[in-house]
Amino acid sequence: MKKSFAKFLTASIFTFGLAGLTTSVGAGSLEDVMKARGLTEKDLLAAAKTYTPTGGRDEFIVFSSGGQSGQVIVYGIPSMRILKYVSVFTPEPWQGYGFDDESKAVLAQGKINGKTINFGDTHHPAISETKGEYDGQYLFINDKANPRMAVVDLKDFETKQIVVNPIMKSEHGGAFVSPNTDYVIEASQYAAPRENGYVPLSQFNEKYRGAVTYWKFNREEGRLDPSKSFSVELPPYSQDLSDFGKGPSDGWSFTNSFCSERYIGGIEKGRPPFEAGCSQKDTDFVHMINWKKAAEVAAAGKVKMINDHPVIMMDTAVAEGILFLIPEPKSPHGMDVSPDGKFFIVAGKLDTHASVYSFEKVIGLINAKDFAGKDPYGIPILDLKKSLHTQVQVGLGPLHTQYDSKECVVYTSIYVDSQVTKWDYCEGKVLDKINIHYNIGHLMSMEGDSVTPQGKYLVSLNKLAIDRFNPVGPLHPQNHQLIDISGDKMQLLYDMPLPLGEPHYAVAIKADKLKPKVRYKVGWNSRTDQKSEYRTRPGREKIVVKDGVTHVYGTLIRSHITPEIIEVEEGTTVSLHFTNVERAEDETHGFAINNVDVNLSAEPGKTVSTTFLADRPGVYPYYCTEFCSALHLEMQGYLLVRPKGMKVENASVSEGQAYAQSDYDKQVKTNVATQEVIDSVVGYIVARNYKDFAPVLALVEDATDQLNFAADSKKKSEDAAGKSDWQNATLWAQQWFQYQVKAADIGLRAKTYLDEHGAKVVQ
Amino acid sequence: MKKSFAKFLTASIFTFGLAGLTTSVGAGSLEDVMKARGLTEKDLLAAAKTYTPTGGRDEFIVFSSGGQSGQVIVYGIPSMRILKYVSVFTPEPWQGYGFDDESKAVLAQGKINGKTINFGDTHHPAISETKGEYDGQYLFINDKANPRMAVVDLKDFETKQIVVNPIMKSEHGGAFVSPNTDYVIEASQYAAPRENGYVPLSQFNEKYRGAVTYWKFNREEGRLDPSKSFSVELPPYSQDLSDFGKGPSDGWSFTNSFCSERYIGGIEKGRPPFEAGCSQKDTDFVHMINWKKAAEVAAAGKVKMINDHPVIMMDTAVAEGILFLIPEPKSPHGMDVSPDGKFFIVAGKLDTHASVYSFEKVIGLINAKDFAGKDPYGIPILDLKKSLHTQVQVGLGPLHTQYDSKECVVYTSIYVDSQVTKWDYCEGKVLDKINIHYNIGHLMSMEGDSVTPQGKYLVSLNKLAIDRFNPVGPLHPQNHQLIDISGDKMQLLYDMPLPLGEPHYAVAIKADKLKPKVRYKVGWNSRTDQKSEYRTRPGREKIVVKDGVTHVYGTLIRSHITPEIIEVEEGTTVSLHFTNVERAEDETHGFAINNVDVNLSAEPGKTVSTTFLADRPGVYPYYCTEFCSALHLEMQGYLLVRPKGMKVENASVSEGQAYAQSDYDKQVKTNVATQEVIDSVVGYIVARNYKDFAPVLALVEDATDQLNFAADSKKKSEDAAGKSDWQNATLWAQQWFQYQVKAADIGLRAKTYLDEHGAKVVQ
Repeated sequence: MKKSFAKFLTASIFTFGLAGLTTSVGAGSLEDVMKARGLTEKDLLAAAKTYTPTGGRDEFIVFSSGGQSGQVIVYGIPSMRILKYVSVFTPEPWQGYGFDDESKAVLAQGKINGKTINFGDTHHPAISETKGEYDGQYLFINDKANPRMAVVDLKDFETKQIVVNPIMKSEHGGAFVSPNTDYVIEASQYAAPRENGYVPLSQFNEKYRGAVTYWKFNREEGRLDPSKSFSVELPPYSQDLSDFGKGPSDGWSFTNSFCSERYIGGIEKGRPPFEAGCSQKDTDFVHMINWKKAAEVAAAGKVKMINDHPVIMMDTAVAEGILFLIPEPKSPHGMDVSPDGKFFIVAGKLDTHASVYSFEKVIGLINAKDFAGKDPYGIPILDLKKSLHTQVQVGLGPLHTQYDSKECVVYTSIYVDSQVTKWDYCEGKVLDKINIHYNIGHLMSMEGDSVTPQGKYLVSLNKLAIDRFNPVGPLHPQNHQLIDISGDKMQLLYDMPLPLGEPHYAVAIKADKLKPKVRYKVGWNSRTDQKSEYRTRPGREKIVVKDGVTHVYGTLIRSHITPEIIEVEEGTTVSLHFTNVERAEDETHGFAINNVDVNLSAEPGKTVSTTFLADRPGVYPYYCTEFCSALHLEMQGYLLVRPKGMKVENASVSEGQAYAQSDYDKQVKTNVATQEVIDSVVGYIVARNYKDFAPVLALVEDATDQLNFAADSKKKSEDAAGKSDWQNATLWAQQWFQYQVKAADIGLRAKTYLDEHGAKVVQ
Repeated sequence: MKKSFAKFLTASIFTFGLAGLTTSVGAGSLEDVMKARGLTEKDLLAAAKTYTPTGGRDEFIVFSSGGQSGQVIVYGIPSMRILKYVSVFTPEPWQGYGFDDESKAVLAQGKINGKTINFGDTHHPAISETKGEYDGQYLFINDKANPRMAVVDLKDFETKQIVVNPIMKSEHGGAFVSPNTDYVIEASQYAAPRENGYVPLSQFNEKYRGAVTYWKFNREEGRLDPSKSFSVELPPYSQDLSDFGKGPSDGWSFTNSFCSERYIGGIEKGRPPFEAGCSQKDTDFVHMINWKKAAEVAAAGKVKMINDHPVIMMDTAVAEGILFLIPEPKSPHGMDVSPDGKFFIVAGKLDTHASVYSFEKVIGLINAKDFAGKDPYGIPILDLKKSLHTQVQVGLGPLHTQYDSKECVVYTSIYVDSQVTKWDYCEGKVLDKINIHYNIGHLMSMEGDSVTPQGKYLVSLNKLAIDRFNPVGPLHPQNHQLIDISGDKMQLLYDMPLPLGEPHYAVAIKADKLKPKVRYKVGWNSRTDQKSEYRTRPGREKIVVKDGVTHVYGTLIRSHITPEIIEVEEGTTVSLHFTNVERAEDETHGFAINNVDVNLSAEPGKTVSTTFLADRPGVYPYYCTEFCSALHLEMQGYLLVRPKGMKVENASVSEGQAYAQSDYDKQVKTNVATQEVIDSVVGYIVARNYKDFAPVLALVEDATDQLNFAADSKKKSEDAAGKSDWQNATLWAQQWFQYQVKAADIGLRAKTYLDEHGAKVVQ
């Protein structure tokens, strides 16, 4: 009834393996399918522009904030497939983030007043820039709810650092980077007392304040440096989004605001709500800050230290000529500097216009000290009309503007109209409009806020999906719509639901600028980017008691955890450290243990740890949580916690299954036959130009490792057989076979890859 | 320079609104696009089969486990777009899950030995069934790491209940439901002592045990009922997946196993690892249990109470004739009963066969007491060959089998070969193979484990994406590949990356069977499915001190939080309760407050709460975290915590901005003009057959609400003007305008919907 394993292996690799590559087009002609699915020709074109066949690559990679999920969402354009959720402010067990000791240390940096905050309200991601161009090295993301800023390293897509803003109680306008990523902006939103502590609302005008913090970035270390960062105190207007100048405006930053009415609510006392009191005036203020000069002022010590953080107070800022205000129509949101740095565009969400400010005019007014007045805090105000290049009526509820690669062309999101308006900011005229579904917030063009926007695509970040997708209960997904902007008219291409989180802003980078690595150096602490003090190597696993903690230095490799049995006494603090000693790029292992709140994710090379108190006698299975091989379920072990004071037993373990010489002989026969098949696969591969295919080279390296392991098990098996220890001889022969299966698995993948990529016979 | 707001509103609605509907096909012909993107005709056909234009619906909805993310992933077929992550075992702030008091109570049900476990390793979701058909009412999902079972209600896609398995330390084989969802199976994996407590591994064979728990489901209450649930004790084999019989096999359940060798590892002592010791024997065991009879035995009290849970011990199970073993080749994974209940298919991952067992033969052997022997625990073993219908060589590392709508046709996932094999289990022959990328675990056909599989599509749940997508660092996404099975040959249609979590199994249901609701009854606790004791209504907001806790009964509506100012004394325990009083289906509001670890998600109607100690004097801004309207950023407030003992001040608040009669007059003029536009939109809508469009009816209802609110603010404004209180008159006039803007926003959406859906003039 059964072929031998080895015979089948041969058949599988050399017959079915190729036969499996079906090539016919299959059921249904294109017209039949279009008719059955109700697709128009326009739909088909959109499908062709977005569909990405197996193995295909996206042209741009998007980093989107995840809103109150506290994460960053990574997806591809034009396929609109989500590739990863990167946890930043919120623990997430699949990644082990906030579960392993190493990442807990990152999250602990984000404690505020000693309190753990297990989420973030992420809003505006920013990619690091070099000379105003996205360089793809780092991503910065803010937390509105608890003012913090995080750094994600794009080498491994992991969160490396969280810094807490020392003077804010609320923010919104971050992250934005200066053209060389010297500084990252975080701007406050709802005003609060500068110091911690209680100040009654009756003193709002006098003691509540806003601010912009300039976080210094140390690119060599890949970390923000709080010791070299500073803030500029601002009036208690609700500061909003920011942008850095570039080119002629380099050295300046721009932060808009709403509620310059300084209304303080009180609906519970019968007064009109904030929304009325914060939207009555026709204009609010752009805050224009000379940050290069501010950095000098801060370096010169002309600051007030608040919570150990240097703050340039408003009177200093005014006296030093680094802070100015420009009126902007009404309750604006976006603040977007043009690629050449000559203009910045603002749109008031309760106005119908987008306003284009000329930096040349603005700086002229400042240099001429031509001011229209001062605000209640003594800050010079520029004249609105004198500052404007033009204003264009773009729609109801304009929010945010993005730049095309085409000169003078921009796109503005129109919230109330649920549209995107394409317009010319040089000539000041509307070019095109497109309906979106529905209620767009931000929008994003490709590298649109860099000095070299890439054009091609625009993404509309819509807030209210409602009827766009199959319903999934009262909490709807958001909807990101992909729009083709390559032609004169905008074309809607794709609706993408957001399954988790509520994105606010996103940034898109050319995919080929990203160079993420696929594995770590062996024994790597990925959160500190240093070798882990807890790393170990195969054969060197050990248990060490130090300072009252039982440290287990273990390894993970398909398909076993070393050690497999750990026994400790009740009351022991146990610290498990596992190094994934795989070199295959896809061989991530996980680790979970019963009744300990932990999942570890150990990608190849990584060392991860978990520390807990074994406070309850019992038996706690542990296992690999990431499906890693055919024998994944057998990648298991037991932690035994012995009651305090109980003597360690030395009882011999009874075998559940006894093996005889015949079992050994049978297994060896299988293994010998299997090896012949593996040799033939190796022959097939080395007869071809496999060295021209990097993934195959990596597979061959991995398969060689597995065959070395097999040889090691074979020796143990033969040694045991030499002592007529048939129990261990049989089991080591089985382990030898298991390594053969792993090698065969890899060899098969290598062969398939060569077949599918047109490898040629070279011998 | 500026048109009036109202004039622009008119232009926007009646001119640009229609002009925005671009209809030309845009840049590039189909051939150009295909050439530029390197698409073949086969690719284009796959694109046409999967691309879903804006507003289009998917035919099937998939519920996939999220693995160690502790979540359930919901996506559509054929679009392969992820619609939602439903949090189950892991807190997730976007949903407020594990952050609001109501869902914290659900997570608290999952504590083990008093310990909070903030993740789960979800494996096998199951949809509730009626007469063996998916009914779309409930979803069950298990946690392997800490044996638990959760219930998700598909009315609102929320987790309602978590139960802790009272006797297991590890599981894997859940959830599986009986044909009418009377019971849900959870089967153990790694054996452990039945009771809690320490037992040395030397007593593994004698004192470690497996089990299958049958959780009783109370459909009326939508909850599992631990008081009516029971378990059957099993030998210390590693039990794996299960399935319930149906039709002729109804009343029986089947659970397979690996490591029937009962190996207990020890690589750290120089012994072969678990993977060798657990895979040496050529066969393991299917456990066949007569669960209907077992339920009677449990009801009759023939059980041992372990941790207050009734367990039918093995000797009782044997004596009562409810437990049998059948050999199965080697280290199997899937266990899949045929739609007609006549067969069950098992595949040994270290065998190359799938084995088809005949229930008729098996039950014949049992009835004839024709046993081949007994296992070490006295359980009768059936003869393998006598139990089989057939065995088919399907590939290297077969794991799991799914049924087609076509008679006798099944699909088996082949891990090592990275293929899916299509075969005929009646005739016992292979029909087709297709390569997948790479290393498939489970696979899933549409309603494939029900009595009426739907055919059409198959999803291959692949483990190792590596080179399929743009790289995103060492931790790769998984890859779900959609395969067209409507023709004779399988056709690969789509690669979907999984951005978060590691799915194991998934289930797909016809989309039209799901009837999720879009809003809650006002004041609803969605976790208990009862009215919340903390609900309130607009105008009835209040602060009540009870049992030392300051309870705030508040409301959320676009765009204000009532109350806007909350002041308490340091040391107060504050419990905030917010009811979202919106009726518009998409008007979810969120709530976050500085330095409190909370995000609330309040969908329309829901009441959500957060309780915390205000232990630090200060000023803590709060705000709506879900972008809800143009004035979303202004949906804000302040919690002030006064130092202990400080006197409440009665200082009057100075206005940041003063308004005169001219401001009032100007605002009223705007409002009157705006109302004319709104009236014309209303005229446009009511002149058409808008009542034929349910979404428009809902929008009209919502707009009417907003206009009523506007009228209320108008009255307040006029009352203040009557007293020459221009400050409040102006601000209430602004609030009146804000409600008009909201009404216009809704009206515009209604008009767009009518335009896009071919509404007709009826007057």
